[in-house]
Order: sequence, then structure tokens, then C-alpha cells
Amino acid sequence: MQKITSGASVKLTGKLTKSAGEGQEWDFNVKELEILGLCDPAAYPIQKKTHTHEHLRANAHLRPRTDETSAMLRTRALLSRAICDYFDSEQFIQVHPPLITSNDTEGAGETFRVIPASEPPEPELSALDVSTPGGKPEFFGVPAHLSVSAQLHLEALSHSLSRVYTLAPSFRAERSQTNRHLAEFWMLEAELQLSTPSLGPVLDVVEGCLRSIFDAYTRSTDAMVRFPEAKAARHALESEWRRMSYTHALEELNIAHDQGVFIKPTGKGKGKDIVPRPVWGQGLRSEHERYLARDVPIFVTDYPADIKPFYMRLNEETSTPPTVACFDLLLPGLGELVGGSVREERLDYLDAALKQRGMDLDELAWYRDLRMYGASPHGGFGLGFERLVSFVTGLENVRECIAFPRAFGRMKV
Amino acid sequence: MQKITSGASVKLTGKLTKSAGEGQEWDFNVKELEILGLCDPAAYPIQKKTHTHEHLRANAHLRPRTDETSAMLRTRALLSRAICDYFDSEQFIQVHPPLITSNDTEGAGETFRVIPASEPPEPELSALDVSTPGGKPEFFGVPAHLSVSAQLHLEALSHSLSRVYTLAPSFRAERSQTNRHLAEFWMLEAELQLSTPSLGPVLDVVEGCLRSIFDAYTRSTDAMVRFPEAKAARHALESEWRRMSYTHALEELNIAHDQGVFIKPTGKGKGKDIVPRPVWGQGLRSEHERYLARDVPIFVTDYPADIKPFYMRLNEETSTPPTVACFDLLLPGLGELVGGSVREERLDYLDAALKQRGMDLDELAWYRDLRMYGASPHGGFGLGFERLVSFVTGLENVRECIAFPRAFGRMKV
Repeated sequence: MQKITSGASVKLTGKLTKSAGEGQEWDFNVKELEILGLCDPAAYPIQKKTHTHEHLRANAHLRPRTDETSAMLRTRALLSRAICDYFDSEQFIQVHPPLITSNDTEGAGETFRVIPASEPPEPELSALDVSTPGGKPEFFGVPAHLSVSAQLHLEALSHSLSRVYTLAPSFRAERSQTNRHLAEFWMLEAELQLSTPSLGPVLDVVEGCLRSIFDAYTRSTDAMVRFPEAKAARHALESEWRRMSYTHALEELNIAHDQGVFIKPTGKGKGKDIVPRPVWGQGLRSEHERYLARDVPIFVTDYPADIKPFYMRLNEETSTPPTVACFDLLLPGLGELVGGSVREERLDYLDAALKQRGMDLDELAWYRDLRMYGASPHGGFGLGFERLVSFVTGLENVRECIAFPRAFGRMKV
Repeated sequence: MQKITSGASVKLTGKLTKSAGEGQEWDFNVKELEILGLCDPAAYPIQKKTHTHEHLRANAHLRPRTDETSAMLRTRALLSRAICDYFDSEQFIQVHPPLITSNDTEGAGETFRVIPASEPPEPELSALDVSTPGGKPEFFGVPAHLSVSAQLHLEALSHSLSRVYTLAPSFRAERSQTNRHLAEFWMLEAELQLSTPSLGPVLDVVEGCLRSIFDAYTRSTDAMVRFPEAKAARHALESEWRRMSYTHALEELNIAHDQGVFIKPTGKGKGKDIVPRPVWGQGLRSEHERYLARDVPIFVTDYPADIKPFYMRLNEETSTPPTVACFDLLLPGLGELVGGSVREERLDYLDAALKQRGMDLDELAWYRDLRMYGASPHGGFGLGFERLVSFVTGLENVRECIAFPRAFGRMKV
């Protein structure tokens, strides 16, 4: 007789009835059993014993069959649904910006290039009017990249549809192999028109969206979906979220430094491990971010203009050096989940920011057009979907938060 | 005084009241008007007069401000929502397969390659164990492509979650510039486990999904969403859809040929334009597809194995030459909208199909694993989202059915 082992496929025919016993809702009385596909236990890479995450990643095509990964996948579906429900109820329109693009939003250079796998046949070369350096014709006439953010295109769409959002892949050619970075990750991005150029309404949408998502997650009764504790989401739901400017955050951090919070004795008489004090004008260290978000979620706003991208709106008050109307949302135990800003809608300010960064105004001509023709105050944000999955499930590595992770040197399936 | 012209942004403050008059639901009594951004009518590329589609495509960042494009964008959102509603109600799980992949599902070679925009710094070269031809290190260790279909990964996920779907971008490096092809397009793909390896349940899902979408579209009362007629969707809803094998379709076509359907007089005494009769073993000509779908939607099933990809399931009946359990759904006025099949779950049959096509078994080792370990009957399909948008809106060119179209030589914004 053939032996049914873990991993085999069977077809069961029988009767499903409400369970009389405790601990389960249904009974299934099997009348017929048909073996569809056997599974050799000696060869099958997924055994009943606990595997390392590395082993499972190397078998990404079979990993969904484990309880942890299938629960994670069901969680992604639940979160996706909650996102759409929230934005639809708030009159946002779901849109589909392009993933192949000619611009690199952050100007950071960590992008992927897109080229056709095969060279075009000779007669077609001349048919396409291209003049790129190196003499090779570009498929799209200009160098094509994979999108690092849909923001600029969302801004264009927002000038028509007012409130827009998208949940779609983004790409960064990062060569670091951390548990927080993927080369291909999903991002929720939203953009909305504002009646005045202030950050408040943008933060309200971020907080409203996340509370709505956490609510859906903690209310789910599907044992196959929810990671048992859901502690992080529940705690965030019950908390009052803070909003604090970068400058005030530095004051709070300096007080903590005075109190010795960042001086930690290291073992074996090696002395003390001291985190340097924050310096106005520099980004926040992860230790400082962790401290600011130690208890409850916190929006840190109005960072120095010099460390932020060209598209963020310069604040009116004449602080020297200047700040921009932007924010990071930091969550307890996770760090940054969301980043966003009011966008610079004033053409003269935008041009000054571009020039200061040595960027080409002509390359962003279409983006400047949005300010030229009917400029209006607007803002938006981006949320890393796998980090959200990590936060609610407690799976620490984002590679465990997506079905087929893509990172430097790791594509196996 | 400043002049408000088409394209300008204004902020209106006032009172919204139920309209007493006819023809509109609301009145807005403006108390204050503030100009946010003016728009120079001499320079603004979007005038009140009707523009050509070419002109609007060249101004894709402003095109969403036209009635036609904003209605199309709202339609995309409505259709996306209807898709999720249908699949969620049918216990499908929404999943997010990778867009960067090492395989080329169709084996057609019309793919995009993905490479990092910048070379890695020297020290990192040696850190990554790569050995690709040409000596250049691959970011992912193997050549990376943009996905032409999520099918193979969906099959892996379906072996865990049973019923899965995704709405995500796909990419084809097609150099043809037709009104039916984009280099980047969105695709609905679904995969489901079957209790027997038959096509019927797959067709039921396709028809159920589309009827549900058409129903949502025709029921929408939002004037900003729906293109006025919605004739095509309404007609499809009211029709009984046909299901017919390729072999029977050829019989029907031959009868039509006998009746002279495909002989058309061409003007000015130039004689007659004759469509060649169909030949068993070859694909269907577009004229023949149009005829088959002249009145109602039709599923054409069971095509010859030789003209179909390796993964389609060989039919049991010993027809010579053999056919596979696949289908195309043809819609009146549109042609092919959906293609799908039962997948070959028998490892020996799969291997024979791969070998016959000269394909490398090792490259698809992970896909073969799905048959090695607990094989089970399953099937699925792919639906071109922009073609669906084209069908319901009546916008003939798919470039008018997506916000920022990507095609050979055409990326402007």
C-alpha cells in the first residue's frame, strides 16, 4: 500500500458537519480517500521538524506550505484588503503608476536599469529616433529604470483626481544584506490635495489608515491569518500617538542623554558604550529613533532641509538653517514605517531646491509643469508594506514577510 | 485683476446644500474664492478644444485632467475593486508574486533584463559568489528578468493556499506598436486547485469574475466613472456565453467559409479579399476570432499541443495530433481577453513537454518540485487589465487605458 506522508496531496470525499465536541467548529467524516500525489519523505525538503529561515528561503517554492509562511501570506491579503477599504471609504482613488520610469525620485542612484534582453533587429534601429551615449539604442528612447517611488507620478494624478493611492512594487538596488531591506518590495503610497500647505491632514490620513489596518488585524478571528499575540498592533491601537518636531525631538534626546539613558555598561569590565549626542542638521541614529518610539508611535516632523530631497516644502518660519514640512513615523520595536511630506508647490522654491542639488531642470520639466499650470498645495507619503507585515506579525526579517524575497545575491526561485 | 482660466487651481469656501432645481443634486454657494495657482492659457498644453490622443499622450502628466482620462482612471479603480470583491467572496487569497525573476514563463525571449544602474564597488565583487558568462557579476547571482507572467509562482502558492490571485504589472519587450500591446501592462492572474484535472471549473471562475465585474460597472451610478453607454459590458452580461473546442470552432469556421462569410468585395473593382481557411494545428487568425465572438463571448478550448506552452495539460483522449486543456476567451469587438489552462501536474508528461521544446529541466527544477512533492491537479488564467478597461470603456487603444503608457520608443513622462 502507498504511504501518505507529510507533503502528499490527497482528495477526501465525505460529509462536513457541525462539531459536537469542543475545540473545533467542524467535523469531517471521510468516506473516500484518493491519493493525488505522493511525497518521498527522504527527499522532501520540508520536514516536520523546525527548519532555519535560511533553509526555507532556499526552498521558497515550498516554504508557503509551512504554517508560518502561509499565515504570513494570509496576513498580507488581510492587510491589503484593509488598506483598500480604508482609502476607498476616504474617497481616495486607487491608481496604477508606472514601474518603468525615466526618473529616479530620490536622486540616490541605487536603481535598476531596464534593457531589452535581445538586441533589436537592424532595420528597426534607424526607425527609432534615439541618441543616447554609448551608441546603443534605448528601447524607450531614454534610459529606463525601475521605479524607486511612484510619488512624482502620483502628484500628477492627484492634480486630477484629488486623492489617490497605490499598493505596488518598488525597487532599490541596495547591496546591503540587512533584515530591513529588499531589492523588490511593496509600497503603499498616497497623495492628496490640501486646502492649506500644512502637514496635519497628511499625518491624519497616515494615522487613520494604520489604526484602521490594526483594527482589522486584531479583530480577525481567522486562526490561519493572525499571529497569536498581535501585541504590537493592539498596543499601537490603544496608544495616543505623538507628533513632535525634529528640533523638539533633539531636545528630548539631549535630556535623555543628561539622564544617562544612552550610556550602557558593556560586560567584562570593558567600560561603557556611549551613543553620541544628536547633532542638529544630521539624520537621527537608530538608537535615538528607538528611544523616541520607546512607548508609543511618534511622528517626527520638520527635518532640516539639507538632509531631505528636493520635493519637500520649505517651512515658512525663518528658522536658520531652514526646515521642510516632512515627517517620519516611528513605531515601537520597528523604527521607521512611513515617510512623507507636504510637496513644494511653489515653482521658484522648487527650482531653487533643484539647482542647489545640482539637478537638471529640463529632466523634470513635466514635474515642473504641475507647478506651472494650476499649482496647488498637496502632500503624501510612502509606507513599506513588508515592514508593516513585520510589525503586525512579529517576523523580524522582511525576507520572511514576502513570498519570494529578492535581495542582493539571493534569487533562488 | 488676475484671470482664472482653464487649468487654474482655486479654493472655494461656501455652503453645500441640496439642490432645489432639476438636473443636479447639489448647490454650492460660494462665499470666498482664493486663487491657488494660475494657468497661462497661451502656454497650457490642454485647451478646451478636443486634442488628438497623440498630443495628450505626449502630455501624460496633464492628460489625467481631461474628462476622458479621469473617467478612465476612475473606471480602473472601480474594476480593481470589483475584481478584489469577487475573488475575496470566492475564498481566493490575494498574493504578491515577484516581478524580478530568473525565468521566462513563455520561453519567448521577449523580456526585459534587470541590471543595477551602477557597478558594485570592487571589494563587494568577491563577496558575492557568482559565475556568469561575460565575467560581469549578476546582482542576483543569475540573470534577472522582468516577469512576463506570475503563473509559475502562483502555482507554487496555490499548492499552499489553494486559490490565489494577483493584480500586478507584467512586462513584454515587444517592438510592435499596435493599439493592443504595451511594454508594461497590468494583469489579473489566478490559480486554483481542482478536484479533477478538468477545464470547467476554471472557465466558471473566469465567467463568474467577468460577470461580477460587468455587473459592478453597469450598476455604477457615478457619472464620473462610467462611460455613458456601457453597451459592451451590458450586452456581455445579458448573453449566454459559449464554450467550444478548437476543433469544433474550425468546423464552424469552415461552414462560414462555405457560406461566403469571409469573401468580401473590395471597392473600385479590385476583386475580392479572401481570408484563407483555418488549418488545424495553426493558431486562429484575428478575422476568425472576430467571427467566433461576433455575437456573444466564447471560450475556445483544447488547442493543439504543438502551438501551446510546455505547462498546459495534455488531454487524455487519444486525438492525433494531441491537444491540451487550455482556453482563450474571445469577446465581441475586442478579441482575446483571457487565456488559461489546466496545468500539467504529471511529472513525466511535464518533462516530456520540456524536452520536446529543448528546454533545460534543471532551470525549472523548483517548478518540477511542485510535481515531485504532492502533485495535484490545478489550473489558472491571465487577463489583460488594460484590454478589460478598453472593452468596458470603448477606448480602442490600450495606451488610452493606462495612466502612463509604456511602449517601444515612447516614454515621455
